[in-house]
Amino acid sequence: MGRITTRRRVTRIRRNAPPSARADVLAVEEPLEIRVNGRPLVVTMRTPGNDVDLAFGFLVSEGVITGGDQVRGARYCAGATEDGVNTYNVLDVALTPEVPPPAPELARSFTTTSACGVCGKDSIDAVTTRSAFHPASDPLIVDPEFLLDLPTRLRAGQSVFDKTGGLHAAALVNAATGDIVVLREDVGRHNAVDKVIGWAAAAQQLPLRGHILQVSGRASFELVQKAAMAGISMLSAVSAPSSLAADLADERGITLVGFSRGESMVLYTRADRVQTRATVTSSP
Amino acid sequence: MGRITTRRRVTRIRRNAPPSARADVLAVEEPLEIRVNGRPLVVTMRTPGNDVDLAFGFLVSEGVITGGDQVRGARYCAGATEDGVNTYNVLDVALTPEVPPPAPELARSFTTTSACGVCGKDSIDAVTTRSAFHPASDPLIVDPEFLLDLPTRLRAGQSVFDKTGGLHAAALVNAATGDIVVLREDVGRHNAVDKVIGWAAAAQQLPLRGHILQVSGRASFELVQKAAMAGISMLSAVSAPSSLAADLADERGITLVGFSRGESMVLYTRADRVQTRATVTSSP
Repeated sequence: MGRITTRRRVTRIRRNAPPSARADVLAVEEPLEIRVNGRPLVVTMRTPGNDVDLAFGFLVSEGVITGGDQVRGARYCAGATEDGVNTYNVLDVALTPEVPPPAPELARSFTTTSACGVCGKDSIDAVTTRSAFHPASDPLIVDPEFLLDLPTRLRAGQSVFDKTGGLHAAALVNAATGDIVVLREDVGRHNAVDKVIGWAAAAQQLPLRGHILQVSGRASFELVQKAAMAGISMLSAVSAPSSLAADLADERGITLVGFSRGESMVLYTRADRVQTRATVTSSP
Repeated sequence: MGRITTRRRVTRIRRNAPPSARADVLAVEEPLEIRVNGRPLVVTMRTPGNDVDLAFGFLVSEGVITGGDQVRGARYCAGATEDGVNTYNVLDVALTPEVPPPAPELARSFTTTSACGVCGKDSIDAVTTRSAFHPASDPLIVDPEFLLDLPTRLRAGQSVFDKTGGLHAAALVNAATGDIVVLREDVGRHNAVDKVIGWAAAAQQLPLRGHILQVSGRASFELVQKAAMAGISMLSAVSAPSSLAADLADERGITLVGFSRGESMVLYTRADRVQTRATVTSSP
């Protein structure tokens, strides 16, 4: 099955209770580069396991094959371990000679690496864009009760969700004033975040120091990457983060909050930014 | 705000009650082609509205700009209507001369159209891949009670979700035997579906006539497209479908089920495939 979950030390916050440290299990997200006849086609962020099925299904979806008889074989770039677990995240699919390979235009853009594999820490380097901003140094401190209230405020601002039940939302919150400065809805989680960040960019407000990005749904690697590019130092999600989301937040010094559900939440990285005001003001 | 919701006639099914026809409101999903300096960069499936913010945010995420002062202007390919609503879904962003345009490798693949816009029915043609299979002609009939039970069965089969709360799932169900023939979990909804379809492709089972694809979460355009490419004639989702998902299901003759929540569900297209066994067997 491959490495589909990973453990991480986290801080759990509940209303009216002291924070507690515990181990949490995260779903693994890692890039898989799919090659066809040795030529890179796409990098998809996926949970490891059933990678050959994933590649076959992707090729079906793209209209390249309609069955396994059109494939000569599929192998990991540098082979697999004895128990079938690959460690390199590059899978090459060889088509039978009669099958036209995908048109070059079909190849998706990504940063290629000179190394064979994109794995663990390397995978972050392989798939991230360097940011001009440094969220790690943002001196932001946020009260836990304030953070716990954000999902309810986000939901209250979702005018279209009420009608359709079908939209993700993202809101940018100014931690100093407490205001939601912009809230956007979209069928795509990443689009809602792009609309919020684009609004701030147009207003020349980047880097967004002192702000919190609150999102509905889960926190993927991609959302942390977008936060980092906008200089946002705190990302809070209503549902679960992936392993790579937490890894990237760690590296960029972003506070990642997950399972923010009103009464409790989980801090995956940079928990030092979440402190009761009493604690903060008690310093001399 | 643009056209962010649309209405559609649907059939609502509840346990132990006759089907009822009603109007339902769907979140609009349409492709937006973002160009930079006249050159196509990406097509994203989004909810119309705040398109300029979306383009700016996308360019920030990709490391192309850090603020609106690096943009000379943004305009729709063929202008907008008097109330600011574009009808063409092509937005061109002109960067200031000092800003290096995105590298050509950054351009995402998509089918370009000779026409200026990608809109409504045209947009389906612009973004879909033609399938070798024809789900419209699948004589599949499914009992509503059987369909209503699938989300619970999907959830019961999600071993990793229990631990992490962070995985989407997709299951392929054989309507004749009632069995889940394959179930996959992934951080990405589309990956879970690719893994299921790829499994079937490897086993030479395409087209998947007589099967139902049950997914967690929402039904986007992309999932309907994947079902169509595999010849699957029924897609059932636990949450909401987008407008374009329903439009494509309509065109391909796929039965699209949404909000399948155990006690009730909504049929968006080809409701004729959902009938109680009594109804079916009573025919002479």
